[in-house]
Amino acid sequence: MPTLPLIAVTMGDPAGIGPEVCLQLLANEAVTEFAVPVIFGDAGMLAQCARKTGLPEPRRVLSQSEWVALQRDESPIQEASVLHLPGFDATDFVPGTVSAATGAAGYHFVRQSIIAALAGEVAGVATAPLNKEALRAAGVQYPGHTEIFADQTGAARACMFQYSEEVRASFVTVHVGYHEVPALITRERILDVIEMTADAMRRIRGREPKLAVLGLNPHAGEHGLFGNREEERFIIPAIEDARARGLTVEGPLPPDTAFLPGKRRSTDAFICMYHDQGHIPLKALAFDTAVNTTLGLPIIRTSVDHGTACDIAWQGKATGSSLFEAVKLASLLAAGHRIDG
Amino acid sequence: MPTLPLIAVTMGDPAGIGPEVCLQLLANEAVTEFAVPVIFGDAGMLAQCARKTGLPEPRRVLSQSEWVALQRDESPIQEASVLHLPGFDATDFVPGTVSAATGAAGYHFVRQSIIAALAGEVAGVATAPLNKEALRAAGVQYPGHTEIFADQTGAARACMFQYSEEVRASFVTVHVGYHEVPALITRERILDVIEMTADAMRRIRGREPKLAVLGLNPHAGEHGLFGNREEERFIIPAIEDARARGLTVEGPLPPDTAFLPGKRRSTDAFICMYHDQGHIPLKALAFDTAVNTTLGLPIIRTSVDHGTACDIAWQGKATGSSLFEAVKLASLLAAGHRIDG
Repeated sequence: MPTLPLIAVTMGDPAGIGPEVCLQLLANEAVTEFAVPVIFGDAGMLAQCARKTGLPEPRRVLSQSEWVALQRDESPIQEASVLHLPGFDATDFVPGTVSAATGAAGYHFVRQSIIAALAGEVAGVATAPLNKEALRAAGVQYPGHTEIFADQTGAARACMFQYSEEVRASFVTVHVGYHEVPALITRERILDVIEMTADAMRRIRGREPKLAVLGLNPHAGEHGLFGNREEERFIIPAIEDARARGLTVEGPLPPDTAFLPGKRRSTDAFICMYHDQGHIPLKALAFDTAVNTTLGLPIIRTSVDHGTACDIAWQGKATGSSLFEAVKLASLLAAGHRIDG
Repeated sequence: MPTLPLIAVTMGDPAGIGPEVCLQLLANEAVTEFAVPVIFGDAGMLAQCARKTGLPEPRRVLSQSEWVALQRDESPIQEASVLHLPGFDATDFVPGTVSAATGAAGYHFVRQSIIAALAGEVAGVATAPLNKEALRAAGVQYPGHTEIFADQTGAARACMFQYSEEVRASFVTVHVGYHEVPALITRERILDVIEMTADAMRRIRGREPKLAVLGLNPHAGEHGLFGNREEERFIIPAIEDARARGLTVEGPLPPDTAFLPGKRRSTDAFICMYHDQGHIPLKALAFDTAVNTTLGLPIIRTSVDHGTACDIAWQGKATGSSLFEAVKLASLLAAGHRIDG
C-alpha cells in the first residue's frame, strides 16, 4: 500500500468556524482514502469546541517534541492527528469574537505549517480561515493567507487559484481596492498567472490544459469602446506571449459571457483580472465545494473557500465540506509534486 | 375578454440574429396569451431571412400609412404584425456583417418605437439587439439602447434592470470603462437606482420588495481594508436614505457572496455598482431567460439579454426565448402601468 501524503491542516482563527471544521475532518473516515491530516492548532481549544458542539474530541494529540522525534522515525504517521502548538492566550476568549489574541494564534499556526512544509515534514498545507481584522489587530501586515505564503516561502511569483468541479479560476489581482486594479494589470503579471495556471492544471488533468483569459472592461472593452484599452495594451500581448511559449490560451473574453455553461465545460481554467470577477461566479456556482490554492509556491497550499463565519461559529452549524475538498486537492497536487525538488 | 397589450418589438440590427428571433416570435402561439407583438422593422429583410432560415414568413405587414389609419380605429390590432419602416439601404448587405447601413437601420427602428410608445400607440417596447460598432459606424453617439431610451424619452433618471426568475439586478453604472466606475458611484445616484428598482419590483410582485445593495470593493471593503471607503462614503449613506423613505434595503453586501442560492431566494432585486458585477452572475445563472429593462422611463421598455451574435446570424441557430421573455415582461409591467399617466 503506498504511503498517503501527510497534509498539515491549520486550525484557523480560534474564534471562527476553523476549530469545528477541523474536528469534522478528523472524524471523517472518507479522508483516510487519500490523506493523513495533521491539525496544526491548539489542542485545548479543539477539546473545548468539541464539548460545545458535540463533535468527537481528537483521538491523537502530538506535542512539538513528539513531532520532532517522529521526523527521525522510519515509520510515517498513519493516523489523523493534532499537533498542539502552544502560545494562545485564552484569557477573555469568547467563541465568535475575534481579537488580537485569536489573530496572533491563527497566524502562528500558519507560520508553523509553512516551516513544516518547507522542511518536507508534510506534503502540503490546507488552511482553515483567518480573519483579516483579527490579523490587523495582532499587528500582522498581511491581508490574508495568499500573501503570507507568497512572502514567507520566498516565492518569486504567486497567484490565487480557485478550484471546483464546476469552474476553476486564477487571479491577476486579489485583495486590493477596486480602483487599484488597472495599475496592477501588466503584461508580465498576466503572463506569470497564465503560466502558473497552466502548470497547476497540467498536474491536475495530466494533459495540456485549455485556458481562457478574461478582459477587464465590460464586453472586454469592445474594441476600445470602454476603458483605457487595457485589453489591447496588456491582456492581448500577454496572451500572445503565452501562445508563443506553446500554451493553449484564448481571450480576452467578455467577462459576463465567459461563465456560460458551455464555455465552463470547455475551459480548464479562467484567468481573472480581479477578485470579484472570478469569486462571484465561483461562489454562485460552486459554493461549499470550491478550494482556494496559492500557485507558484515551492510548497503545496490549499484553503477553504469561506471565511471565519463568526456569526455561526462554535454552534455546530458549519459544514466541513470545503476543508475536506481542500485536503483532497492538496493530496492530488502533492501526488504530482516532488517535495524533494 | 380584456384587450391584450400591443408591444412594439424592434427588429434590431438587420445583420444580427434580430430578424430571425422576431420571426420566431411571430410564429410562437404562446405569445398570444399575454400580448400582441408588432415588429418595428424592415419587411423585406424579414422575408429574406425567413427564406434563408426556413422560418415562416410574416402573415400581416402594415405600411406606415396603414399604421396611422389604425390609430383612428376603435378596434385595436389583435394579430401579430410587422410595421414596415422603409429606408434601409440593402446595397452590399451581407448577413452577419454589420455596417454603417445596418447600424442606421437598427437605430431608426428604435426611434420609431419610442415615438409610438410616447404617443401611446403601443403599451411598451421590447428590443432585439443592436450592435455598438455598427451604431458608431453610422455616426450614432449612444453606446446602446439604455442610453437612447433614457435620452430620447426625456427621463430625469434611468437605470438598467435585468430580470429573470433566478435573479434580478439593477445597475448604478453600465457601459463605462472599468476605471471610470468609482467616480460615478455617488450617494444620489445609488439612491435613485434603489428607488427605481423598488418601484419596478413593487409593480412586478404586488408588494413591498426586499432589496440588497452590493459593495464596490472585494468583501465590500471589509471596513476600510480595501478601496477608498466607497462603502462608508457613498453606499451606506444611500442605503440609510432609502430606509428613511420606508424602503426595505440591506447592504452593502460583499459582492461575491451576494449571489449564493439562499440569498438569491430571499432578495427581490440586487443593486449592482457596475456592469460585470451583475452581468456575470445573471448570465452564469439565467442565460437565455434574462430580460433587460430600462427603469425610470415614462414608457415601458424591455430587451433581450444577448447581442447581435453575428457569428451565427441568419443560420437558423439562434433561440428566441429571450425575446419571448422580454415581450412577456413588457406585458407584465404594462398591466400595472397607466400609459395615459
